[in-house]
Amino acid sequence: MSTYNDGASLRRAIRSGAYTRPTSGQASGYVQANLVVVPRAVAFDFLLFTQRNQKPCPLLEVVEAGSVEAARLAPGSDLRTDVPRYRVFRDGRLVDEPTDVSGIWQEDFVSFLLGCSFSFEKPLLDAGMEIRNITLGRNVSMYRTNIPCRPAGVFAGPLVVSMRPFAPDEALRATQITAKLPQVHGAPIHQGDPGLIGIRELDKPDYGEAVPLEEGELPVFWACGVTPQAVLLEAKLPLAITHAPGHMFVSDIREEQIPWFHERVR
Amino acid sequence: MSTYNDGASLRRAIRSGAYTRPTSGQASGYVQANLVVVPRAVAFDFLLFTQRNQKPCPLLEVVEAGSVEAARLAPGSDLRTDVPRYRVFRDGRLVDEPTDVSGIWQEDFVSFLLGCSFSFEKPLLDAGMEIRNITLGRNVSMYRTNIPCRPAGVFAGPLVVSMRPFAPDEALRATQITAKLPQVHGAPIHQGDPGLIGIRELDKPDYGEAVPLEEGELPVFWACGVTPQAVLLEAKLPLAITHAPGHMFVSDIREEQIPWFHERVR
Repeated sequence: MSTYNDGASLRRAIRSGAYTRPTSGQASGYVQANLVVVPRAVAFDFLLFTQRNQKPCPLLEVVEAGSVEAARLAPGSDLRTDVPRYRVFRDGRLVDEPTDVSGIWQEDFVSFLLGCSFSFEKPLLDAGMEIRNITLGRNVSMYRTNIPCRPAGVFAGPLVVSMRPFAPDEALRATQITAKLPQVHGAPIHQGDPGLIGIRELDKPDYGEAVPLEEGELPVFWACGVTPQAVLLEAKLPLAITHAPGHMFVSDIREEQIPWFHERVR
Repeated sequence: MSTYNDGASLRRAIRSGAYTRPTSGQASGYVQANLVVVPRAVAFDFLLFTQRNQKPCPLLEVVEAGSVEAARLAPGSDLRTDVPRYRVFRDGRLVDEPTDVSGIWQEDFVSFLLGCSFSFEKPLLDAGMEIRNITLGRNVSMYRTNIPCRPAGVFAGPLVVSMRPFAPDEALRATQITAKLPQVHGAPIHQGDPGLIGIRELDKPDYGEAVPLEEGELPVFWACGVTPQAVLLEAKLPLAITHAPGHMFVSDIREEQIPWFHERVR
């Protein structure tokens, strides 16, 4: 159940420390985003990584070194405090999951906000489809695949996908609906046999929770914004920060505005 | 009339010095691209500029410092020789228009290839529409507008647009057709009164040639890949290189592949 009806009020609760849980289902209709923060020395490499891997990394906004405000997505926001839970990576290891990163923020940090599949859940629900993990109250299942991302500088690693089970005809409908939303991962990248993309056990996701398939359903796989976290593990940067999976940055942009977000010229 | 039927044979003729003219109408159906080359020190700024200004700068491929090959668009290509005519900018001034830039190429150059409106001309012609500048055998009209691009680092400046005249019903059709091709500038950004976007005299374009409107026609304006050239003038870099307007980099990618170019994950 949603307690917060818009992005700004949810961000205020997060900033004050009152809200530290996953953001799925909150501020319904407002765009949520994945966060990746890296030092300026590798910012070109990461920006290029997003350009070369647009399915997992659909870039919404870049916040340059010296600023902590996502001025287009959420004027007045503070990226150091407005995510309910962060992940801190040091030398390629996950070392902490704090709710505030003000104490370790560096002047040379560049922040990247990437589209999130939470933004296509509402269009699917509105089309009368069931999203199993929402029905069960679980986080979505996410898996590392054997599909390599296109490397860029120090960044390389496997594509991570999220999975939702659908009957075959619903998978076709879900494909058509999400294909129209490339800014939030677009159409699926695979359906059916998980082994074909290197996933051995569907009931043992690498991130999130297991979600069972019913008789006759296909697992349908979308490129996932957790991909940079798999890539950060391999890049072994001295320090990098992301959101914790499911604990997203919630913006002031309505999902209906997303198709026009990069179209506007003034 | 097309003498060269594919991108590879046209690039060979360009590289040998046999072909130095504009590329419109050549290698029909193959994607043509705008070229921008800047030193690595400002490559992050320019990459961010393309991300913030996707209508004029729809990025197809980035070639990193140390390489001169557009490996995805045209394997085996050489960006120093495979454009029929270049523009060389020193300290914010256009100083030369050579057909080969091997002699001034720097190890730290990063190259950006951007989609070009030539790639939506064929779909418009196929839909039975007249493109006036092609009928007249002229280069398309291009104008600096009063719409500022979103700045990024050292890069800022006005949006440049290309103009094609259409009857009102054709403008609607052209809008629908080009809206489906965001990788090559997408839908128009304006139609009708040129004064509303700061264009004073339609018959005096800033780039290309004048193209007359017939009775009852609207001027229809698309964001243009010449925008970076207006921006380079203002950035005053010690050295930067672009293609000369109309003299594009011709790829091996078919126009039909463009909608999938950033969708492919392997």
